[in-house]
Amino acid sequence: MMAKKGFVRSIVVENPSLNNNTADAQRLEQCLLDELGTDYIKIPLSILKKLPSNLRSWGFRAKAVLFKDRHSWILVDLLNSMSDNPVLGTAVDIGTTRIVVSLIDLETGVEIGRKGFDNPQAAIGPDVLARIHYSSKKTGLAELNNLVIDSVNFNISALCKEHGYKKEDVYLFTGAGNTAMTHLFLGIEAIEIIKEPYIPCVNIPDTQPAVNLNLDINKNALAFLFPNIGSYFGGDLISGILFSGLDQKQDTCIVVDVGTNAEIVVGNKDWLIACAGAAGPALEGGVSKMGMTAKPGVIDQVWIDPDSRDLMIHAIDEINPVGICGSGMIDLAAGLFLSKRIDIQGKFSRQICGEQLFEKDGINHFILVDENHSGTGEAISLSQVDLNSLTSSKAAMYTILEVIVKNTAGLEFSDLEKFYVAGTFGSFINPVSAISIGMLPDIPLETFEVLGNSSLGGAKELLKDPDAFERIMKIRQSITYIELNVNQEFMNMFSGAKFYPHTDASRFPSLQNKI
Amino acid sequence: MMAKKGFVRSIVVENPSLNNNTADAQRLEQCLLDELGTDYIKIPLSILKKLPSNLRSWGFRAKAVLFKDRHSWILVDLLNSMSDNPVLGTAVDIGTTRIVVSLIDLETGVEIGRKGFDNPQAAIGPDVLARIHYSSKKTGLAELNNLVIDSVNFNISALCKEHGYKKEDVYLFTGAGNTAMTHLFLGIEAIEIIKEPYIPCVNIPDTQPAVNLNLDINKNALAFLFPNIGSYFGGDLISGILFSGLDQKQDTCIVVDVGTNAEIVVGNKDWLIACAGAAGPALEGGVSKMGMTAKPGVIDQVWIDPDSRDLMIHAIDEINPVGICGSGMIDLAAGLFLSKRIDIQGKFSRQICGEQLFEKDGINHFILVDENHSGTGEAISLSQVDLNSLTSSKAAMYTILEVIVKNTAGLEFSDLEKFYVAGTFGSFINPVSAISIGMLPDIPLETFEVLGNSSLGGAKELLKDPDAFERIMKIRQSITYIELNVNQEFMNMFSGAKFYPHTDASRFPSLQNKI
Repeated sequence: MMAKKGFVRSIVVENPSLNNNTADAQRLEQCLLDELGTDYIKIPLSILKKLPSNLRSWGFRAKAVLFKDRHSWILVDLLNSMSDNPVLGTAVDIGTTRIVVSLIDLETGVEIGRKGFDNPQAAIGPDVLARIHYSSKKTGLAELNNLVIDSVNFNISALCKEHGYKKEDVYLFTGAGNTAMTHLFLGIEAIEIIKEPYIPCVNIPDTQPAVNLNLDINKNALAFLFPNIGSYFGGDLISGILFSGLDQKQDTCIVVDVGTNAEIVVGNKDWLIACAGAAGPALEGGVSKMGMTAKPGVIDQVWIDPDSRDLMIHAIDEINPVGICGSGMIDLAAGLFLSKRIDIQGKFSRQICGEQLFEKDGINHFILVDENHSGTGEAISLSQVDLNSLTSSKAAMYTILEVIVKNTAGLEFSDLEKFYVAGTFGSFINPVSAISIGMLPDIPLETFEVLGNSSLGGAKELLKDPDAFERIMKIRQSITYIELNVNQEFMNMFSGAKFYPHTDASRFPSLQNKI
Repeated sequence: MMAKKGFVRSIVVENPSLNNNTADAQRLEQCLLDELGTDYIKIPLSILKKLPSNLRSWGFRAKAVLFKDRHSWILVDLLNSMSDNPVLGTAVDIGTTRIVVSLIDLETGVEIGRKGFDNPQAAIGPDVLARIHYSSKKTGLAELNNLVIDSVNFNISALCKEHGYKKEDVYLFTGAGNTAMTHLFLGIEAIEIIKEPYIPCVNIPDTQPAVNLNLDINKNALAFLFPNIGSYFGGDLISGILFSGLDQKQDTCIVVDVGTNAEIVVGNKDWLIACAGAAGPALEGGVSKMGMTAKPGVIDQVWIDPDSRDLMIHAIDEINPVGICGSGMIDLAAGLFLSKRIDIQGKFSRQICGEQLFEKDGINHFILVDENHSGTGEAISLSQVDLNSLTSSKAAMYTILEVIVKNTAGLEFSDLEKFYVAGTFGSFINPVSAISIGMLPDIPLETFEVLGNSSLGGAKELLKDPDAFERIMKIRQSITYIELNVNQEFMNMFSGAKFYPHTDASRFPSLQNKI
């Protein structure tokens, strides 16, 4: 099998002669059109300025750095094919909380390195809402834009240096973020995103000279940000679908991104159905609000022997624990339920918990780590309030999955060929635990697959594969976006899902032996 | 008849709603696509940045400033439809010797004013050859580029001020020049144009942000320079053909541009044949080298009564004459021939000239203005050497016309519906005189039509008519460019044409009664 051709190509331009006195630029153009099998390519003026002497000193051979956008191929730069100039690209996941930059060798497609850092806009506002409000103030948009651009510039430069490259070696930039982050990154007014009727300024940003975005990489570099479908369905999700390959699957699969919002896409090569964003009061808080962010000392895994009821924990970096994160909480809830310490209504059983339960301000707390083994000097516990919140979250997740898979797509969970879990949080969830509490459907474990940072993955994919652009546009076109309608029917389904694992326990046959 | 729609359109963008939450940019795009009947338009990032607040404060009504290039429509800027901001364009004839800037109201198509000035590159080299050589020196290209751009900026700004406008009111720039001038204007290496095999860097320059060319007009303005066919067939000629409308004529016509080179295009809506440039040693000097450049005191018209042989002259601004320009020389030669003071071989007849002829260094001189009536204190005369040069030039012109019309197109001169004379020099030629000396073919006088500055005319046309772009590309495609082959056959034809009016006098029936 031939390796797929990327964005760097070796070309040989026809020599000029008295018989072919077509201009250099037009012979170069023809050579590229033939190489790419297309009928139009943009060649920027900056390349033309020295084209005659360059082509002649290079013997009419060159290395073409290319890109493709919604309308055409673009020649990014033309290099001496004899030189060993590196040709790099950066793919960036522009997260609300965290930004990850990946450095890619465009000639091999290999990832050279990766760097994650906090989105510095958090200093202005922790969430999208606060930042958008701030952006509508006098110099707010410029401030937010500068913060994110400066931090990306700094980290690209640092990442290049770490690996022995220069920032000028970076010719392509792809970025995926939610609709708000994308607008702030482009320096585009964002306030309408959060005002009814929730209209983004742009769905499909065109490819830009990177310099127009103040990106400090190669002066000829191009930058592309993933398109969105609306205010609540951003380029990060489109990028994630690209990475999952959902748009090319024969059999129906699902992608669930448990990030700041719960975002779900189900479909195959023929159709895609998506829902995303807040789903009304029932989901306030959302699954991602459970527990702490992963950091050293945070409990990320919990095991409870259902018979002995012995409890084992794992804290990140194996130091004394300081708290618990989402995946740990799901493990914990599953263990507590299977060991009968919480009942099917999600309430602590005083009888079974015994002295592991203490009451404070009239609220039950389950002690997970006593004060002697804690890293904070205080016991680490799970309160009934925490548990209720987890119960709501898991019920919401299950209900949304049910709405989209059953009510909307008209399928059964068992029809799903693959169940992709994306997002940082999703990567750490133990599907067995999630099934045990009725958060995820009871389908074979091998169906579940962790995608990791799918938003970054899609942005990387676009740096490697010229066909990705068409897939992105097709994904945008073929998605049916459903608004979660939190009506009486939804609330009824939600009520059933708030039980452990569900009022209809027959949906979770794998638990029959365990409960 | 509906007025043809230009590059400024009033548009109404669909209001957003919960039912149509398409982004502002995409609703704007759809509105423009509908208005223009096209399927792709570029919208620059700079317009997006404030699009949401602009559209809302304007009630979703706007004035769109548009342009079109080889590949798509482009939105140049979006203005409040309620404002009375002027929307102007500049068309520029980038001549080797002289540059002319025309200021156009893009909403009405009306020319507001025009300004001509000498190309300041002349300080570096008088002709294309000298400038291109200079451009290949260290900072030569940048110097030449700065000179022309600065002078154009200065004059656009002055022209705007004179008419009560600001340079920021200029949104479009179209320029037509020969291939060398176009390269220098774009700052592109030009040396290969004059080195065998004479390859321009670019045939079809893409539309550029004006700021990329350092043009100091509106910051969103676009600039387009006319494409060329080769080193010797420039954008000025393409522009001239556009202006003449040759490409849309039912019947065959000819355009003759007597500028720095003799350039000729014959054709109609189905085909175009062109030749241009130097035609070998026989044409050295060329028609344009005859006489002085038009300025006050220069004789531009001469009448000689064939019977009385009385001679009348007209000098520009009617002051005492200081010299004679090309059109005056053609009148003079015609008068001298018809009054038999020069014979059919183009030699002065001592017998008939009498004391109007004096000899100096063994060369005959015909006195046109004696020293008492001259503005220089010396007699103004025409020497046999000057006359020989004129004879060669007129013979060359006729021979080229014969080669292109008869030998190449296979037509007779009488098949030409119109004979357009373009260029500054051409504007002043009296066709009767030119026919009398056998320079132009003996066809009905009403066939001749003066085009004036056709290069500027085409550039203006492109500011008014969105369809012009396609015509330009079609003109480029449909031209068959013939190299004048100065072979034995050409030299034989040339020899015949050096007679007055021609060895074959039957070609000039209108002269039969006069000679």
